[in-house]
Amino acid sequence: MEWVLVKNLKDHVGSEVELRGWVYNQRASGKIRFIILRDGTGTVQCVLVKAENPGLFEKAADLTQESSVILTGSIREEPRSPSGVEITLNSFIIIGRADPYPITLKEHGVDFLSENRHLWIRTPRQSAILRIRSTAEQACREFLHGRDFVLADSPIITPAACEGTSTLFEISYHEEKAYLSQSGQLYNEATAMALNRIFCFGPTFRAEKSKTRRHLMEFWMLEAEAAFFEFEDNLKLQEELVFHLVRTVLDRHSQDLRLLNRDIEKLEAVSLPFPRVSYTDALKLLISEGHQIQWGEDFGAPQETAISEKYQSPVFITHFPAGIKAFYMEPDPANPEVILGADMLAPEGYGEIIGGSQRISDPDLLRKKIAEHNLPVDTFSWYLDLRRYGTVPHSGFGLGIERTVAWLCGIEHVREAIPFPRTLYRMYP
Amino acid sequence: MEWVLVKNLKDHVGSEVELRGWVYNQRASGKIRFIILRDGTGTVQCVLVKAENPGLFEKAADLTQESSVILTGSIREEPRSPSGVEITLNSFIIIGRADPYPITLKEHGVDFLSENRHLWIRTPRQSAILRIRSTAEQACREFLHGRDFVLADSPIITPAACEGTSTLFEISYHEEKAYLSQSGQLYNEATAMALNRIFCFGPTFRAEKSKTRRHLMEFWMLEAEAAFFEFEDNLKLQEELVFHLVRTVLDRHSQDLRLLNRDIEKLEAVSLPFPRVSYTDALKLLISEGHQIQWGEDFGAPQETAISEKYQSPVFITHFPAGIKAFYMEPDPANPEVILGADMLAPEGYGEIIGGSQRISDPDLLRKKIAEHNLPVDTFSWYLDLRRYGTVPHSGFGLGIERTVAWLCGIEHVREAIPFPRTLYRMYP
Repeated sequence: MEWVLVKNLKDHVGSEVELRGWVYNQRASGKIRFIILRDGTGTVQCVLVKAENPGLFEKAADLTQESSVILTGSIREEPRSPSGVEITLNSFIIIGRADPYPITLKEHGVDFLSENRHLWIRTPRQSAILRIRSTAEQACREFLHGRDFVLADSPIITPAACEGTSTLFEISYHEEKAYLSQSGQLYNEATAMALNRIFCFGPTFRAEKSKTRRHLMEFWMLEAEAAFFEFEDNLKLQEELVFHLVRTVLDRHSQDLRLLNRDIEKLEAVSLPFPRVSYTDALKLLISEGHQIQWGEDFGAPQETAISEKYQSPVFITHFPAGIKAFYMEPDPANPEVILGADMLAPEGYGEIIGGSQRISDPDLLRKKIAEHNLPVDTFSWYLDLRRYGTVPHSGFGLGIERTVAWLCGIEHVREAIPFPRTLYRMYP
Repeated sequence: MEWVLVKNLKDHVGSEVELRGWVYNQRASGKIRFIILRDGTGTVQCVLVKAENPGLFEKAADLTQESSVILTGSIREEPRSPSGVEITLNSFIIIGRADPYPITLKEHGVDFLSENRHLWIRTPRQSAILRIRSTAEQACREFLHGRDFVLADSPIITPAACEGTSTLFEISYHEEKAYLSQSGQLYNEATAMALNRIFCFGPTFRAEKSKTRRHLMEFWMLEAEAAFFEFEDNLKLQEELVFHLVRTVLDRHSQDLRLLNRDIEKLEAVSLPFPRVSYTDALKLLISEGHQIQWGEDFGAPQETAISEKYQSPVFITHFPAGIKAFYMEPDPANPEVILGADMLAPEGYGEIIGGSQRISDPDLLRKKIAEHNLPVDTFSWYLDLRRYGTVPHSGFGLGIERTVAWLCGIEHVREAIPFPRTLYRMYP
């Protein structure tokens, strides 16, 4: 008999098939037993009528939560079920009877759930989030490959920091000091000069003492870089990417989003082009609303939320003061106090999901900026080479996938947006 | 005028277009000048006739190697050119005139090239390899998504080692000892129990004192894991994946493979199913050919090469002695001295590109194996949970992308198969 995954059941209505998975829950009402089977691709209700098979009905009492089973059954359409189908159970065998499962259907504390993350991820909510994460990552890659971007993995072990060493994890590399990368960007600029349009998508690390719902010590970042792309090209690429992400998740995960109680209308309201507001205009607006902030200061979470709440789509904050942004950002020729870069803020207070800019292409200006930021010129000599040998205007950005997934799923904390989060106080399991 | 990438020129024959890139080389023969432009997606020859535009002809003498330019020209079909087209140059502007380029068209030593990896990657050979790497990684993901596998990133920072700590990079995680992951496998088993069929694809780290052409300190590994997959399902998945990789690279990179002087016939000869030979049979064969090796010893590079040379396709060596393989591999019920796992050796002496197995699903046997391997049971308590709560047969494998790319490209050393290699003596740039 054919083994069918739960997510594909609706293509086999009327057939008898084999299912393999785990018992998520069961309840009996005298003569009828309902078993909820999960197989990681979805859940489906299986119905067992006592009168039709008394032996099997009895044996099913032994199915503890998370016991693994192989079962056979017939697929019926059932409009009231979230999956659209229901199974009439014909037979099953128990593969592994589970001990009493620590994560029951009642509420548990976050510490307990985190300690049992290897089991927590089996719950419908966590599985749905991780499936959406997978699709979001896949959609990023598909989008960029479709635009002639080439994947170029940047190194994790790096000899020096992009900006200071205070938030870096240090390792000993055969008796030399090395650090875990916070960003592949400098390397991306080198590969963009070699391959034109490139991206990397890997883990990045920040040893920050932050304990907010937006921070992880280890998180995945998509970073794209394109030769001959200027500020405007960069923003266009970003908004089209994020719009594609939203549409793809809506298309492929309506059931998962419903399970998460996501307000789908808010995602459906996202439209192109995304609004843009300059840092200076955003500041004026914030001050008019009573925020205590001066030109040249960075926005914090309250400011970001105040701005993003005014829009249904993600919003670009452009032209930040050079002093609060990275040394390599191209100054605006019309006003060198600000840079040709932008942050993209997600709606609903989810904060910055993208940071990007055009990069300085003039070698002398770049050398000057490195000095102004008190960075060691030696460390950046290879990076300066990119301007000595055929410099071109180029731009790029980095998208934090956990924050993006948290927004798409409408969840509170980024720790649920990655299979095994690394937070300030936890790196287990 | 439309900006067209070199790789897309053949779709615009007859048009005048804009090209943006870098001067790879130029030569003049009195009245005619040939400029080879590279833009990262390919190279194309641009022709400039003195009589038609004497001013431009003169100005072009100033185009040093790697100077960046924006040019316009008309595309002509040219069957003798590798790209199939040639450009009649109409105009150009110099964006960045390059200083004398350190990497000229003559031969350079490996140390010098490695020191200048950020520039070395611009050469046609290195660019071709990196483009093929991108496609190989993309093809892995497309293949697995097409088979209902979900991406589940495994953590890099881990509290404990899978097998000993001698080859691990240690980091300080907020005053606790932690290590960089050598494999996502144990985590993959947890996510497979949650999501059914999953893969991770990220950097892995080995602080080995090896200095061979097959080893890197930091390399990328595709690791797939599937619930309810047994030994046979696992091998089938692997051979279909690798076959798909070979076909995809052949389809999309004929020009790059030619540039690399790859013997394409050897890749075209790869066919399904891949041959299989048991460890024991392979050993007999090796001994009959004079190798000094006894049952229970692992194969080294000479033995792997001797075996793989007998086949045109990659070959599986199956049923290794349990003693030389990881603790979690399922023993063969027909002979518990050997395991239900296999290594896949690439042809032409490229060595092991995949290692995989069915995993032990019985909790008592797994506990016993952990003890036998002198591993700390405490560290593995969450891993043992996977067998306490709904254990199922499951299998998986890991594919090393650098070795696979080295084989596909026919190159000598894995260090050329990754943008910025980390080797025993080098982590710069």
